[in-house]
Amino acid sequence: MGALHAGHAELIRHARRECDAVIASIFVNPLQFDRPDDLARYPRTLDADLALCRDLGVDVVFTPAASEIYPEAPECTVDVGRLADHLCGKYRPGHFRGVATVVLKLFQIVQPERAYFGEKDAQQVAIIRRMVTDFSIPVDIVEVPTVREADGLAMSSRNRHLSKAERAAAPALYRALLDVQRKVLAGERDAVALKSAAAAAIPHPDMLKIEYFDIVDPHSLQPVDRIDGPVRAAGAMWVGPTRLIDTVLIPRP
Amino acid sequence: MGALHAGHAELIRHARRECDAVIASIFVNPLQFDRPDDLARYPRTLDADLALCRDLGVDVVFTPAASEIYPEAPECTVDVGRLADHLCGKYRPGHFRGVATVVLKLFQIVQPERAYFGEKDAQQVAIIRRMVTDFSIPVDIVEVPTVREADGLAMSSRNRHLSKAERAAAPALYRALLDVQRKVLAGERDAVALKSAAAAAIPHPDMLKIEYFDIVDPHSLQPVDRIDGPVRAAGAMWVGPTRLIDTVLIPRP
Repeated sequence: MGALHAGHAELIRHARRECDAVIASIFVNPLQFDRPDDLARYPRTLDADLALCRDLGVDVVFTPAASEIYPEAPECTVDVGRLADHLCGKYRPGHFRGVATVVLKLFQIVQPERAYFGEKDAQQVAIIRRMVTDFSIPVDIVEVPTVREADGLAMSSRNRHLSKAERAAAPALYRALLDVQRKVLAGERDAVALKSAAAAAIPHPDMLKIEYFDIVDPHSLQPVDRIDGPVRAAGAMWVGPTRLIDTVLIPRP
Repeated sequence: MGALHAGHAELIRHARRECDAVIASIFVNPLQFDRPDDLARYPRTLDADLALCRDLGVDVVFTPAASEIYPEAPECTVDVGRLADHLCGKYRPGHFRGVATVVLKLFQIVQPERAYFGEKDAQQVAIIRRMVTDFSIPVDIVEVPTVREADGLAMSSRNRHLSKAERAAAPALYRALLDVQRKVLAGERDAVALKSAAAAAIPHPDMLKIEYFDIVDPHSLQPVDRIDGPVRAAGAMWVGPTRLIDTVLIPRP
């Protein structure tokens, strides 16, 4: 969706190393925004994005207009089923339907052999992986680890909206995720207790509001009560008017 | 779905004339059956189908097992929106979701440049056309006119289920459709009156039961009350335990 940052750059570097030709799409997809104000406010920095793509050796940047991707409102869309029942899907109705539909379209138009996605948007990656399997789409999905600032904040196009005070408070989500990871590795198996403790530990209650903080199966994205295998801890937090998400994968304890 | 008849043969002949290589898929798709008894009863004649394909010069016949197409129940499926609100979609919940999903999968697996469908299943063709547009799938959809028996009955794999008496009564649906066409061409514009008259004119009320008889916009598949442009008349009729469908396109009056 553009507003490229170091996380996107890392996707491009991986692709550049592994592929003959690299195509980047930059398209702020209206179908995946559940709130018009969020679509209007989403950062758009096309000139800088194109310069970065050039520097990183991208062969083609695909920057369609919304009217090219959606000449009319689509009648057919991708129903992602239970994969959107929890995490961000629960709080952003229609978001993953919009994501899956545009990614399916981009796959059909570009016909890549491999497609690179960032781990930060873990529910998105899990849904796209499942869509590729369910629809027999001939593309390999490559997941690239989240790139972080020095204090742990996950790179996000939305970080540029943060005030100085918000920016200073924003790493609290990642710290809460690491705390869950540490406790699981130390033997804690009760996901419900872990979630409560993590949510309670978020500071600055007037600036930071947890939207969700959950522990789920990494593939089905269904919440687990007891941790018996690998899990994904994931949360969404409002920092003032800005919504940030983050996640860590916790291997089988 | 196999149980090939003269209508399928016509699809293959069109493809053979227009394409370098012809691939036929034969797959009785469980995802599109709304009733388990209908799936169990659907005719399967693979040896005869393969012989016909060979005779007609098909290069490849793709006959996957259900476990290959659906290693597990799909989580992602194609939501076809309002296109399934009327006609067969109204009476077969989930049917067109199953059709669109398997056709999308077959397109991804086979990657045809053109795909041939019969006009008899007009709602299916309209939905597939719309899916191809909405998902930017690089395939041309070719619609081939319905092939009919001498008395007008549309070819269908289900015709083989008809008893002699049922077979004799079955052309009533097509006759009703032609009657609508004749009246529209003679100046009738009131779709509601046309539908009532057509449904009332179906004979043998103990053997033939109209499921629906409708007049719709050919693209949106929404019912029209007044006929001001091209329309499609379409019906479904139970002939004893067998459900048959048929349709005629009526050009702008």
